[in-house]
Amino acid sequence: MDLKSKIAIYPDFPKPGISFKDINSLIKDGEAFHEVTDQFYEIAKALDVNVVCIPEARGYIFGSALAYKLGVGLVPIRKPGKLPGEVMAKSYKLEYGENTVEIQKDAIKTGDRVLIIDDLLATGGTMKAAIDLVELLGGEVCGALFMIELTDLKGREALKDYYVRSLIQFPI
Amino acid sequence: MDLKSKIAIYPDFPKPGISFKDINSLIKDGEAFHEVTDQFYEIAKALDVNVVCIPEARGYIFGSALAYKLGVGLVPIRKPGKLPGEVMAKSYKLEYGENTVEIQKDAIKTGDRVLIIDDLLATGGTMKAAIDLVELLGGEVCGALFMIELTDLKGREALKDYYVRSLIQFPI
Repeated sequence: MDLKSKIAIYPDFPKPGISFKDINSLIKDGEAFHEVTDQFYEIAKALDVNVVCIPEARGYIFGSALAYKLGVGLVPIRKPGKLPGEVMAKSYKLEYGENTVEIQKDAIKTGDRVLIIDDLLATGGTMKAAIDLVELLGGEVCGALFMIELTDLKGREALKDYYVRSLIQFPI
Repeated sequence: MDLKSKIAIYPDFPKPGISFKDINSLIKDGEAFHEVTDQFYEIAKALDVNVVCIPEARGYIFGSALAYKLGVGLVPIRKPGKLPGEVMAKSYKLEYGENTVEIQKDAIKTGDRVLIIDDLLATGGTMKAAIDLVELLGGEVCGALFMIELTDLKGREALKDYYVRSLIQFPI
């Protein structure tokens, strides 16, 4: 299946100069969503994963089906103030300003083999923050998976110490 | 499996007086997450669903695995400004103030049989707004599923014209 053709492209969304890659046109197609999950599963099954970690919100879409198929648990990484109990926070720089993400402290155990999955690899900032949180809790990041990679933004360089795979690539 | 015992309860989160039911303690348990998805599937398979609709963000967690297992597509309902292209918006009242949700106009076709799934049934406001959006686009809502129902808040009354199921119930 040509998954790339299922991604709708919206110029100048959410702001001028951004060519937005919309995963919604893909996931509303049941066969395409099934194929994507099966492709992620083929990659993940070799990695001896026992936790799938999902950055809010689009990471949830791909991570939930994958965790179900792998038979492992799910750990969300959320925007500040959303998670109850003791959390660990990590801030990272954006082009303008910064962003912060949180994880529950009891979500990862020492030695957990954690796969992190998100929709888009751009500069890699969100994924690197997620990796840092997992490692701070003693987890081992065995892979970072993405639906789409924007190759010109060189997010792989920020993640060069990790196993990174994407299903679809666009230059930008 | 006693799914209810997997839900952690946090008093006074996110604000005083709220007894927060945390699904994260359940979904991080791979067996419990699998069991939940299988229970949703047992309910959904009788409903002749061809679209699973998922309110942001926790609806994604249960809806993605379910859509995968059903072999159907996923349509998110998101906070304003997140979805590209033409959208339809619906506002609804909260205890204080109001909330707005959006759906892409081309996400639902006339006659689609749509199952909407979310983590929590409280007053039913978010689900009713999601139902309204699906119906405005010509879809038929064949069910509203929830992980948790807070029965004292009587959300079922707001959804009395629809097939509603929840896996776990708490009074409040």
